[in-house]
Amino acid sequence: MNAKEMLARVDHTLLKPEATWPQVQQLCDEAMRYGTASVCINTCYVKQAAEYMQGKIPVCCVVGFPLGAMDTESKCFEAAKAIENGASEVDMVINIGWLKNGQYEDVKNDIAAVKKAVGDKILKVIIETCLLTDAEKEKMCDIVPEAGADYIKTSTGFSTGGATFADIELFARCVKGRCKIKAAGGISSIEDMEKFVALGADRLGTSRAIGLMQKAGLV
Amino acid sequence: MNAKEMLARVDHTLLKPEATWPQVQQLCDEAMRYGTASVCINTCYVKQAAEYMQGKIPVCCVVGFPLGAMDTESKCFEAAKAIENGASEVDMVINIGWLKNGQYEDVKNDIAAVKKAVGDKILKVIIETCLLTDAEKEKMCDIVPEAGADYIKTSTGFSTGGATFADIELFARCVKGRCKIKAAGGISSIEDMEKFVALGADRLGTSRAIGLMQKAGLV
Repeated sequence: MNAKEMLARVDHTLLKPEATWPQVQQLCDEAMRYGTASVCINTCYVKQAAEYMQGKIPVCCVVGFPLGAMDTESKCFEAAKAIENGASEVDMVINIGWLKNGQYEDVKNDIAAVKKAVGDKILKVIIETCLLTDAEKEKMCDIVPEAGADYIKTSTGFSTGGATFADIELFARCVKGRCKIKAAGGISSIEDMEKFVALGADRLGTSRAIGLMQKAGLV
Repeated sequence: MNAKEMLARVDHTLLKPEATWPQVQQLCDEAMRYGTASVCINTCYVKQAAEYMQGKIPVCCVVGFPLGAMDTESKCFEAAKAIENGASEVDMVINIGWLKNGQYEDVKNDIAAVKKAVGDKILKVIIETCLLTDAEKEKMCDIVPEAGADYIKTSTGFSTGGATFADIELFARCVKGRCKIKAAGGISSIEDMEKFVALGADRLGTSRAIGLMQKAGLV
């Protein structure tokens, strides 16, 4: 896989709370220059980014982020508003407390409600693997596709850990093609990117990909 | 100030994303037993907690939390929905990126819009002091009361630092009584609690207060 093909799988990401519009604008410029899969940003910048990029690169945004403990209706509102503002991909966080408490139907309904709000746009579902047991991860590999989501995603990047190779292997084994896979959080080398893709990741969420490719002289 | 008076200033807090309903229920039980100012929780548990406590202790919840980078309309929706579900206090996070970019009117309008959604209930505004310069903190000591909010609050507890004595001194000096003050994040001893109050904090946000009081044999 060459650099261009790899970058076409990257959600070029800037989610830190202190990010300014000039920084988001630079993210958009880089995404348009190098052809990433999307820019992934917070909802306060969706409208501006969509207007700025004029459809050249899809806008992805996060919802109920990074805790996932927002009530379902508010997640749906935030997702619908983002779509209205020009987003074409939404990365939501599951309700982790409900999962821990065995409320599997509630977890599924939370995802399904956001999928309804997102309509025919892409929904990725962050399960925050670093807080889950392997049994809980496996459970989510059933719930996420059953709820109609398009991707299962490892991590927010704001908790105790990011994507691991073992998690992507687990996803690939348990999801069995029923939804796609996104690795995110802490991805910090081109070798890691290649390995995540080889293990089954369709998308990579990282802020570092373009910088790494530039440093390696690949773009 | 005795233990009972101190606990009456504490927002008894549980915000970790993996918190389960039994854990929130225990928080509510402790709050009712010891008479804290409120329980402070995520919006997915507001309705259950309000029904469980039947008005005995106010329900406080967080909105746009912890990044503050949610679009304004979604913050308003989440706040209004929480009030509808029984919350009587809302702790929102400001848009930190807008502040960093000098968009002071936008920061103020974001707060004012949530205050409108909250109506006659209490609005606290988290400025995440650990990410701000002193000049930015001072600016927020004008903006928060001008926007009609009831409290200025230091920290989410999810960023690089929590409340400091210096920040509460700065708040007291700059707010000049135009709004109240809440110290939150990392408060870990009774001595700290007393010092924050002596420096001007009207409320304390912590998960540890009751445990500390119990350990010291004060309750």
